[in-house]
Amino acid sequence: MKMLPLKIALCATLLQAGAVIAAESPASASGQQITRAGTQPSITGPAKYFSGQPARIDPLWPANKDINASGALVTFEPGARSAWHTHPKGQFLTVTAGAGLTQEWGKPVQVVHPGDVVWCPPGVKHWHGATATTAVTFLTVSGTVDEKNVEWMEKVTDEQYNAK
Amino acid sequence: MKMLPLKIALCATLLQAGAVIAAESPASASGQQITRAGTQPSITGPAKYFSGQPARIDPLWPANKDINASGALVTFEPGARSAWHTHPKGQFLTVTAGAGLTQEWGKPVQVVHPGDVVWCPPGVKHWHGATATTAVTFLTVSGTVDEKNVEWMEKVTDEQYNAK
Repeated sequence: MKMLPLKIALCATLLQAGAVIAAESPASASGQQITRAGTQPSITGPAKYFSGQPARIDPLWPANKDINASGALVTFEPGARSAWHTHPKGQFLTVTAGAGLTQEWGKPVQVVHPGDVVWCPPGVKHWHGATATTAVTFLTVSGTVDEKNVEWMEKVTDEQYNAK
Repeated sequence: MKMLPLKIALCATLLQAGAVIAAESPASASGQQITRAGTQPSITGPAKYFSGQPARIDPLWPANKDINASGALVTFEPGARSAWHTHPKGQFLTVTAGAGLTQEWGKPVQVVHPGDVVWCPPGVKHWHGATATTAVTFLTVSGTVDEKNVEWMEKVTDEQYNAK
């Protein structure tokens, strides 16, 4: 029973791509560490933080004592998007496939394509997701402080999503 | 003439994927910033730090005051490899295409494939590159301290490279 809260916390933290899990961090070993493809299960984001099909998160690496940002691939199906949120230490998003959308509160929706890099500064309210017709995968590199990398807010309405 | 030392320093710093360039950092703006694909020129690594064809570095983002690691794609042609080196704050390498090699000093050469993630802890002497027959691209996320993310050492000999 003691594991359950940890798992819930872990899932929530991984949501935006990575967690600080000291015990599982490859940085805890002294030499070079290889995490092989296929050894880190995909995670489905909690429905309460997404509209449409919740994003799939494929973890790459956790933040550690040397590099303060975790890495993951986050994939949105067509029409799916995150809720509004902020990052306490910012996030770099690099589009690796498909076509995506992102919007900062009070500004227009922006379309992003593979190779585009988005910097979301700390505290800036925004959302991101797929276009209505095309899935998108983001490489997310999320700054982490006190084991936290995201602050969730309300969902993005259809009106907001379709405002473009 | 005053620009030349800056350019040389910039090239060396970008070598392992990213530089801290405050004036050009998207983090210097207050809102969400998008760097579009094709707006950041590819860089060729200095020959003195590589064997075979020097790596091509495609910068993604610089480290900033919030996230202490830069990101770049680094591509090695078949047979090409970096010199031995260390990272002051470590580096995460994720293979995105092809087939690569990496070796920690005193340990066997390891083969890596797409989706594999390598953690190179601070101060651990190592090299990485392509296999003899297949090119490789790494997503490199390099911890940065005092605007530095690599300490270069001697080149990898053919005997070391072919030891596998």
